[in-house]
Amino acid sequence: MSPIYFDNAATTPIDPRVWAEMKPYFEDFTANPSSIHSHGRKAKVAVEKARKTVATLLNTSPAEIFFTSGGTEADNTVLQSAVLYGGKKVIITSPIEHHAISHTAEAWEKLGLVKLEWVKVNAQGDVDLIHLEELLQQNPDQALVSLMHGNNEIGNLLDLVAVGNLCRQYGALFHSDTVQTMGHFVHNLQELPVDFVVGAAHKFGGPKGIGFLYVRSGVLCHPLLHGGAQERNQRGGTENVYGMIGLAKALELSYSEMEEHQSHIKDLKQYFINQLKSNFPNVTFNGRSGEVDNSLYTVLNVRFPNVADGDMLLFQLDIAKISASGGSACSSGTSIGSHVLTALNPSAQGAAIRFSFASYNTKEEVDRTILVLKELMK
Amino acid sequence: MSPIYFDNAATTPIDPRVWAEMKPYFEDFTANPSSIHSHGRKAKVAVEKARKTVATLLNTSPAEIFFTSGGTEADNTVLQSAVLYGGKKVIITSPIEHHAISHTAEAWEKLGLVKLEWVKVNAQGDVDLIHLEELLQQNPDQALVSLMHGNNEIGNLLDLVAVGNLCRQYGALFHSDTVQTMGHFVHNLQELPVDFVVGAAHKFGGPKGIGFLYVRSGVLCHPLLHGGAQERNQRGGTENVYGMIGLAKALELSYSEMEEHQSHIKDLKQYFINQLKSNFPNVTFNGRSGEVDNSLYTVLNVRFPNVADGDMLLFQLDIAKISASGGSACSSGTSIGSHVLTALNPSAQGAAIRFSFASYNTKEEVDRTILVLKELMK
Repeated sequence: MSPIYFDNAATTPIDPRVWAEMKPYFEDFTANPSSIHSHGRKAKVAVEKARKTVATLLNTSPAEIFFTSGGTEADNTVLQSAVLYGGKKVIITSPIEHHAISHTAEAWEKLGLVKLEWVKVNAQGDVDLIHLEELLQQNPDQALVSLMHGNNEIGNLLDLVAVGNLCRQYGALFHSDTVQTMGHFVHNLQELPVDFVVGAAHKFGGPKGIGFLYVRSGVLCHPLLHGGAQERNQRGGTENVYGMIGLAKALELSYSEMEEHQSHIKDLKQYFINQLKSNFPNVTFNGRSGEVDNSLYTVLNVRFPNVADGDMLLFQLDIAKISASGGSACSSGTSIGSHVLTALNPSAQGAAIRFSFASYNTKEEVDRTILVLKELMK
Repeated sequence: MSPIYFDNAATTPIDPRVWAEMKPYFEDFTANPSSIHSHGRKAKVAVEKARKTVATLLNTSPAEIFFTSGGTEADNTVLQSAVLYGGKKVIITSPIEHHAISHTAEAWEKLGLVKLEWVKVNAQGDVDLIHLEELLQQNPDQALVSLMHGNNEIGNLLDLVAVGNLCRQYGALFHSDTVQTMGHFVHNLQELPVDFVVGAAHKFGGPKGIGFLYVRSGVLCHPLLHGGAQERNQRGGTENVYGMIGLAKALELSYSEMEEHQSHIKDLKQYFINQLKSNFPNVTFNGRSGEVDNSLYTVLNVRFPNVADGDMLLFQLDIAKISASGGSACSSGTSIGSHVLTALNPSAQGAAIRFSFASYNTKEEVDRTILVLKELMK
């Protein structure tokens, strides 16, 4: 029986076509793109081509795209820049952000360099926009707002336009951690009222260790990594050329196949929801993840109210060769429950299991998962 | 005529054996090492095996090795940690450091968070240890000293033991940017009086985009990248698994072949020096790079006193398919001369060209380079 991988929100497999694009840069010599000789120029051309691809897909300019080692570095760059160089005195964020945002904001607050305001979320995981506006009113021209686009655990989607417009109204910078939606939804950066978004290649069929930061032209940008003149003086360090090439190819494929990708996964998710409901009448779905058309369609977070030990259930699924997760992989092994689910409902009973999908997943895999779950629930 | 690559201090080609080690992790699915299911555990095992390899080679413990996106990130982590969390009020460094150190230190000074002291270097590029001791005396228990082990432009080597002992005497932390010597010299971290050293895989036959930071146990360490619990809570961000595997393999090969590697390159460098001297009697060698046994043996920085335009000479070499450099690749294209050479002798005349070697370079390549130089000098 071949293993089933339902943890694509943690990382997606590399698309073989992405891998084929990267391979020559490993097999043939790839120089330092900052070197001015022919060996270096060849690498530089590849890097700038990758940047142009990303910029074109997101409908923005290459000068606004900076490659990083991943989403976490990109997120840290925004927050650190805003605190140290942007004169922002307040970070407004939510209790359901990825730790790349919340732990970073808390670290800067602990140093006494910024005030941290938590915008409320309701029991469905929706950000309270009325509360956000109150916080913005209390801190005119002083805030960086950092709110994620698609929640990695519960799949809630933020209304980027509504939040961005509020931010502009009150002179706040708006950063959105788009790690989970990049490559899965269209981001038209000419139209979206955002100042910063980020991407991590391994969430959309690319390699690990590479990501990017978009910074709207004219908006604050300051290096997190000081050093050489790479990335137009905004990010020191020799470029991860192969990673950049892989990221660009993965984003290109994601965009060209987005419609069928969305339609296949939404169909699969609806099927999974239906099967769960009919086999386990008391299951519920955390956040908005049970709403196929109104959520990050790749994520389904299931609550089994009669299961006391979620870790044991995951372990049993693992033995049956089914990989799912209890929440963010980044927090695994820390022995602390999901901060996201706790924020929604601190006293919720039962086990929460996140299944997250990619286009290669099938209904047969769902069927087998349901069978295994039925066995386990006996 | 096949191209000649004499710019190995900028980046080395990936050793095919390193690539062979990495390849399966691209071709077969590599999950997120933080995921607790079997897919994830397999990746985790690979990461921890890589960490153990690095630790064993450097004669230290895996708990003291943290993977980063490269040398620059590792350097930035040390300086930022010392300033923000280590209570260090002074950074003592030299004017011939890589920009990953000097620009970082300047950035923190500019923010008013640390005082910067520059230790003197002489015209040969040697750090003035008497001046260093004076600076340490003036700032007891308050300093982070950051001095590189092998200079990337002029090949000078620092006496790590002497500097480390001075630092301990005056309660300073000692960081050495060992990017150029890692994999080229033995670092026995049980014996060396250093608190931090760093490595970047692409300087010793590994891939770009991956490096590591060694932090002596018990010494300050604080994340630069806040986020997930990766790297034992010291470096957020999904692990670049393939990169870590490549780095470990490259370091393993470097250590197992170090003697023959050193002997071959020293021989080649001596040959190059002899040929240059006999064909161009007025050449000199910047820093200690002309001393084969008393320098970073991979680097030879040649001054041609009668050549007015170094960039033009590099360009002509490039046309002849010979890749060399004017100094650090990280500063290329910035239209500013080498800060290292300027620190040694601000009024030096002529062109400085850095040739830097790896074990695959040959005397035939040296011969052809000499012939081309003779043509160009006519």
